[in-house]
Amino acid sequence: MKLTVEDLPDIATGAALLGTGGGGDPYIGRLLAMHAIEAFGMPEVIDAAALPDDANVFTIAMLGVPTVLGEKAACGDDVDLAVRSLEQYLGRRADALVGIEIGGINSLLPVMAAARLGLPLVDADGMGRAFPEIQMVTYNVYGVPATPLVVTDDHLTSLVVDTRDAAAAEGLVRVASVQMGCSVILSSYPMTGEQVKRTGVHGTLTLALEIGRAIRHGRETGDPVTALVDYLRTTPYYNQCEVLFDGKVVDLSRETRGGFNMGFCHLEALDGSRRRLEVTFQNEHLVAREGGRVRCIVPDLIALVDRETAAPVPAEALRYGQRLKVIGISAAPIMRTPESLAVFGPQAFGLDDPFVPIEQLGD
Amino acid sequence: MKLTVEDLPDIATGAALLGTGGGGDPYIGRLLAMHAIEAFGMPEVIDAAALPDDANVFTIAMLGVPTVLGEKAACGDDVDLAVRSLEQYLGRRADALVGIEIGGINSLLPVMAAARLGLPLVDADGMGRAFPEIQMVTYNVYGVPATPLVVTDDHLTSLVVDTRDAAAAEGLVRVASVQMGCSVILSSYPMTGEQVKRTGVHGTLTLALEIGRAIRHGRETGDPVTALVDYLRTTPYYNQCEVLFDGKVVDLSRETRGGFNMGFCHLEALDGSRRRLEVTFQNEHLVAREGGRVRCIVPDLIALVDRETAAPVPAEALRYGQRLKVIGISAAPIMRTPESLAVFGPQAFGLDDPFVPIEQLGD
Repeated sequence: MKLTVEDLPDIATGAALLGTGGGGDPYIGRLLAMHAIEAFGMPEVIDAAALPDDANVFTIAMLGVPTVLGEKAACGDDVDLAVRSLEQYLGRRADALVGIEIGGINSLLPVMAAARLGLPLVDADGMGRAFPEIQMVTYNVYGVPATPLVVTDDHLTSLVVDTRDAAAAEGLVRVASVQMGCSVILSSYPMTGEQVKRTGVHGTLTLALEIGRAIRHGRETGDPVTALVDYLRTTPYYNQCEVLFDGKVVDLSRETRGGFNMGFCHLEALDGSRRRLEVTFQNEHLVAREGGRVRCIVPDLIALVDRETAAPVPAEALRYGQRLKVIGISAAPIMRTPESLAVFGPQAFGLDDPFVPIEQLGD
Repeated sequence: MKLTVEDLPDIATGAALLGTGGGGDPYIGRLLAMHAIEAFGMPEVIDAAALPDDANVFTIAMLGVPTVLGEKAACGDDVDLAVRSLEQYLGRRADALVGIEIGGINSLLPVMAAARLGLPLVDADGMGRAFPEIQMVTYNVYGVPATPLVVTDDHLTSLVVDTRDAAAAEGLVRVASVQMGCSVILSSYPMTGEQVKRTGVHGTLTLALEIGRAIRHGRETGDPVTALVDYLRTTPYYNQCEVLFDGKVVDLSRETRGGFNMGFCHLEALDGSRRRLEVTFQNEHLVAREGGRVRCIVPDLIALVDRETAAPVPAEALRYGQRLKVIGISAAPIMRTPESLAVFGPQAFGLDDPFVPIEQLGD
C-alpha cells in the first residue's frame, strides 16, 4: 500500500466508522499525521506478510478519555519517547510499528509515529475496530504479552509497566492515564513479525481508507449510506452488515467515569412507528437493543452515521435531535472465536447477553 | 555501627516513635529483617561519611496505607525486583542502600533488602522521621531527583516512573499503589555517595536504636517516658522535646482516602481540668492543638505513647479510652530550613498555621 497525503481524510472517515462511537476523533489523528508527514516525509506502509519473522514490532497509540484526546493531543516528543523508552527497556530497536486499533484516532497516530521515527508501518491492527481496554486485542488473545509497555505524557514523564497479565497492565495504565491528564501515549505489545502475522487483523489501514472512499463517492452519487453498506459487503471482515435503524436522538446520557466515557443513546424511528433503539457505550458502542431485543452486540460493530451524509458520529458528538442511521457490522472472524469472546465478548463488558453474530440476529 | 539481631526490637520501638503515628508497623519490618538476616546474614551498616563520593546509592521502602502494610508485607522477591529493575533501567549496579524514612516499617525494610542483596546499608535517611509522600524528603529538597524509580508488588509487577518532578512522581506512584493493593515496594532517589552525605539526615538508624534502648531501660527503672525524654535531649536532632499532654482518647476518626490514612484523635486531660488536645494526621501526625492553640506542628514530631510503658502508638492502633502521653520533638535542623518547609511544612499538608519550632511554642 502506497499512502498519500490525499488519503488521510478518507482514512479518518473510515476509522471514525470503525471506531463505533469511540477511539477518539480521527480528525485529530489526521492533523497529527499530516503535520508529521510535512516535517518528516511519508512513512512506508507494508503488509504484515512482508515482515521478517524475527522483526521487532511495537504498537503505538493514544489512550485516554475520547473527549480529552481531542483537546490534549500528542505533542510528538511524547510519541518518540514512548518508542525509545520501550527500545531502551528491551535493549533492542524497533524495526516497524503497528496499530493497536484501526478505529478512531489510533488509525492515524501510528502514521504520525512512523513518519517521525522513520519506521515502516504495518497495514494491520489488533481488532479491526476500536475497544476501550488494553487487553482487548487479538495480540493478547493469541498469546502476545502486553508488557513491557511504556506510557508517556506531554510533560515527557514516562512509565514502564512490566507484568504478566494484560488485564493488570490495563488497570495500572488506566489509573496512571487519569493521573496524567486522561490523554497519554502508549507503546505496548512488543512482538515479532511472526506474531504480528499470526495474531493481527490484517489489511485494516487499507480497509479504513476504502471505507472512507466509499462514503465520499457515495456522497457524490447521492446515497452514501447505501454506498457504504454496498462496499462493506465486498470486504473480507465486514461483509455481514445491515442498517438496523433510522431515527433521531431522543435521550442521551454520557459521563466520564474511571477514565472512560460511559453512557447510552436512545433513538426513535422516523417512520412514526414509535419504535426505539437503545445503544449503550463504554467509549465504544457495546449493544443495540430494540424493545429489549438485541440487534447487534460486541464484538460486532455498531456504527452511528448521519442519515444524509453517512458521516460517522462519535459518542462525544451525539446530541438531542440528531437524525442518524445505525449500522450493524460483522467483526473479523478472528474476533469471534471463543478465545476472543472470552476477552472482549459481551461478558467482558458486564453484559448478560450472549454474543450472537449479527447475521443470525435477523430484523 | 555493628548491628545484631538483638538490636532489632529496640530499633523497631525507636522507629515507631519516630514514625509519629504513621510509617507502618515497625514490628512487621522487624520480622521481615529477622527472616532475611537468618537466610542471608547480617548486612553491613556504614556511616554516610564512609561512602565514596561516586558510589551508587538507592533508597528502598514500602509504600502504601499503613493499615494494609501490616497485612500485606513484602515477599522478598518484590524487594529484589525493585532494586534490580532500577539497576537495569539506569544501567549501573547499586553499591549501597539507604532508607527514605527512619520512622515506622521503613526503618527495618532496608535492613531486609540489604541482607537479601548483600549490599551495605547507610546509617541515614531522608527525614529523620516518617512522612506520607515521596517528595517529602531532604533528598528532594536539596536537589536529588526522585526518579527514575521502580514500584513493585507481590505479583512481581514492576513499574518504572521517570519524570522531572518528585510531586508528579508521587501522584503517579500513589494511584498505582492503590491499584496494586495499597502495599508496594519502592526503590527511588538513585543518588551518589556525595549526594547522600550532603542531603541525608545522618545517623538515624543508630538514633532509632538508642531511642528504643532508652525506652527499654526506662521500663526497667520505672519511668520510661522520662527516660525517653531525657535521652532525646542528648541527641543532635531531637533535643528540643516536651511532654505536651497526658490524657485519654475521647474521640477518634480514621478513614482510608486517596491511599492515605486520614483522621484525628481527641484526648482529654487526666487531671480533671477538662483540657483537650486534638491531633490530626495524614498517615503521620500533623499538628497538635490545645483549645485552638498549636502546641507542635509538622515537620516537628508529635509522638503518642502509652503513658505507662512509653510504647509508641501508631494511628491505626488508637482506640477510645487509651491513656497516652503526647510528646512534641524537634525535627533535625536540615528539616526546618525554608527550602524544607516549602516541601513538607504545614502548608504542604493544607494547614493554614505557619511552622513555629516547638521550643518557641511554650506551654
